[in-house]
Amino acid sequence: MQWNRKDLLELYDLTPEEIELILDTAAEFKKVSQRRVKKVPALRGKTVVNFFVEPSTRTRVSFELAEQRLSADIVNVQASASSLLKGESLLDTIKNIESLQVDLVVMRHSAPGAQAFIARHLNCGVINAGDGAHGHPTQALLDIFTIREKLGRIKDLKVTIVGDILHSRVARSNMWGLLKLGAHVTFAGPSTLVPREFEEVGVRVCHNLDEAVADADVVNMLRIQHERQTLGFFPSTGEYSRFYGLKEETLKKMKKDVLVMHPGPINRDVELASSVADGEHSVILEQVTNGLAVRMAVLYLVAGCVKK
Amino acid sequence: MQWNRKDLLELYDLTPEEIELILDTAAEFKKVSQRRVKKVPALRGKTVVNFFVEPSTRTRVSFELAEQRLSADIVNVQASASSLLKGESLLDTIKNIESLQVDLVVMRHSAPGAQAFIARHLNCGVINAGDGAHGHPTQALLDIFTIREKLGRIKDLKVTIVGDILHSRVARSNMWGLLKLGAHVTFAGPSTLVPREFEEVGVRVCHNLDEAVADADVVNMLRIQHERQTLGFFPSTGEYSRFYGLKEETLKKMKKDVLVMHPGPINRDVELASSVADGEHSVILEQVTNGLAVRMAVLYLVAGCVKK
Amino acid sequence: MQWNRKDLLELYDLTPEEIELILDTAAEFKKVSQRRVKKVPALRGKTVVNFFVEPSTRTRVSFELAEQRLSADIVNVQASASSLLKGESLLDTIKNIESLQVDLVVMRHSAPGAQAFIARHLNCGVINAGDGAHGHPTQALLDIFTIREKLGRIKDLKVTIVGDILHSRVARSNMWGLLKLGAHVTFAGPSTLVPREFEEVGVRVCHNLDEAVADADVVNMLRIQHERQTLGFFPSTGEYSRFYGLKEETLKKMKKDVLVMHPGPINRDVELASSVADGEHSVILEQVTNGLAVRMAVLYLVAGCVKK
Repeated sequence: MQWNRKDLLELYDLTPEEIELILDTAAEFKKVSQRRVKKVPALRGKTVVNFFVEPSTRTRVSFELAEQRLSADIVNVQASASSLLKGESLLDTIKNIESLQVDLVVMRHSAPGAQAFIARHLNCGVINAGDGAHGHPTQALLDIFTIREKLGRIKDLKVTIVGDILHSRVARSNMWGLLKLGAHVTFAGPSTLVPREFEEVGVRVCHNLDEAVADADVVNMLRIQHERQTLGFFPSTGEYSRFYGLKEETLKKMKKDVLVMHPGPINRDVELASSVADGEHSVILEQVTNGLAVRMAVLYLVAGCVKK
Repeated sequence: MQWNRKDLLELYDLTPEEIELILDTAAEFKKVSQRRVKKVPALRGKTVVNFFVEPSTRTRVSFELAEQRLSADIVNVQASASSLLKGESLLDTIKNIESLQVDLVVMRHSAPGAQAFIARHLNCGVINAGDGAHGHPTQALLDIFTIREKLGRIKDLKVTIVGDILHSRVARSNMWGLLKLGAHVTFAGPSTLVPREFEEVGVRVCHNLDEAVADADVVNMLRIQHERQTLGFFPSTGEYSRFYGLKEETLKKMKKDVLVMHPGPINRDVELASSVADGEHSVILEQVTNGLAVRMAVLYLVAGCVKK
Repeated sequence: MQWNRKDLLELYDLTPEEIELILDTAAEFKKVSQRRVKKVPALRGKTVVNFFVEPSTRTRVSFELAEQRLSADIVNVQASASSLLKGESLLDTIKNIESLQVDLVVMRHSAPGAQAFIARHLNCGVINAGDGAHGHPTQALLDIFTIREKLGRIKDLKVTIVGDILHSRVARSNMWGLLKLGAHVTFAGPSTLVPREFEEVGVRVCHNLDEAVADADVVNMLRIQHERQTLGFFPSTGEYSRFYGLKEETLKKMKKDVLVMHPGPINRDVELASSVADGEHSVILEQVTNGLAVRMAVLYLVAGCVKK
């Protein structure tokens, strides 16, 4: 199995073998961050631009550390504080960046498909660090990596993702990745946030939490994003929490070795009880650790396919 | 020929030989960015502070990559987000930075002459990355480098710069550099934006585009900066574009091998037709690539003259 | 004497021997910044996150350069421009950062004790870069380093700190450090800004400037922070300056070899006459230079005690 893509745009595009190659590579890179000298020269003399048009700290910091541990040269561009975009098209901006002999662009953008669009016009590699509600492939890969590491496989596992599926790029990318590797995916939450349309691609849709998590091997609790929910998809966070928040008592009815995941940042005691977030089933901080390894793997594989 | 200036403030100060030394050095550094490992240890253990009091992304990113490819240590200070300036004079701020044993300060400032002022008080080197409407020497050097690379020389070439000359540091720095190397310079645009005073230093001033570009070897189209033109120097961008925008039909009347340049970011179909910007005469993206090489050359030469 | 703390939180916690170990180590690192290649590999492959929740440029730049000269990998997080904190607790944020296998967190925060709080919950090291009005240990260490370097000792010296003691973390940290090393400390300023309570820990409190500085070996003039003094602690800056500003005429009545210090940025001709700031007694820029050495020492010592 050889990697031969210069871009990572969406898990939908990948074969199961490609996804597994990323996971296997990440497992190797995970060891690097456990060494005394957390660094390998794999991308020495390569240039990575982190181009974040939507604000982000967690994902940006994770990518930046991954790049540093691969010894890449790094430039951060945050477009809010940027003069790059004054009257200029996204493509002109990115073509300019490419003209500085950049090897990889890691990009977050609020427009779905923005990365796929620019990738078609560039020789340098493009990594999607989140495009609107469409996709967030490295987040899904780190979730899948964590499940595989903890439970030994993905095939036939039951993974329930709970929350605002409608606006969630994390849910979409997880869905594609998990389905490709043979897991059973359930989306759960209020009917306003979990459309039935997902049944068409093979996802179980469920509006009752107890039912959705009863036989789950993994429960991934999405963040309720107050800042996006202005339209009133549910009456109040209190009510949301009552019906869809994961609490100790729900946990007791679930499988003994269920994994509790969350992409962060957590709204404690809204979608996830604080005691559960810090409890024995939670692998939330390990997800963060694994994110670094997964991003190192993606950067490394993609960089190897950029023509120079 | 030896370089012996610790600062690069304005092309006006330089001899033709000094300008050519920068261009020759840049030609060497251009090769570095074409290698697999785009890095040389020339400035290892040296510290460069990018001190940008006016917002900038393109120039800052270009300098930052140049510094990384020379292996310098880099700190970015953006004064808008800065507490450096609270009640403190520019000179105190910069003296503080120098006290951190910094070797070079790359500075952008809205006040003409700000860099020249601080350079007189500092032992570290100062590179002007734009001072108000006064100068932007590395932009002019990359323009001149691109012309020389494409046409083999500067002497006796006819270079026409079109647009808002009045507010353009790019035009001023190009003018000094081109005149010193023996080119013929024409400034073109509406009379409100192209003052006759430039004739006194040997520039042809022209208010008709066809006439200005008829026998030009190079046409450099300046960006119409909406954000600065609040005073009504021309009736509308539509009218500006009609009279001074470079279109396919104008191009047909020009020399067969004319170079079309633009400092970016382009207002497509305002000062420059989109088809011309992307057409065979355009060297706009090559200018960006050359900018990196020119900045590496300037950083390298200037750093060699900083006393330690 | 061996260093065995993974955190630097406040000078109050340290023994005199520990403070002296930092100062001695800083003296060694000061030489590094005077070399042609200003870099040692001491922290190669270690990761430092500069987490600044309050805006800061001077301290951030000083730490960042110290980290670069130790060859650390560095990520800057400024929480104002951050999505880290959206509805998330400080501890969750920091635990996330730690999960990226970070070795050290350098943190500024407006809440007194914030660093001490997180340090108890983290395995990685924590360095306090200022916590509200509580402490700023590296600033105090650089002040003490400068005094020791200039006057050869700290014991029995008379150090007068003038200004807004009430709101000053610099004054508090200096106080603890100086008292531990056997100096005599005087706090001077208007009674609204210099509470008598400090007498209980052995500080002389004085509301008359001439009296406070008459036999001082060192005078440290604090910045009057206009931005914090909204409550009217003194009638006007003019009046403050008249009674508590250090002027040439005051200097004439003082010891012949008195040191004049200031943590910066200076309000020229408010707390400090411009001629005094630039005069022969001033060691203000040397404080900045020494700050880098002191921060290198702290980073180095603390990093050596972080378990991995």
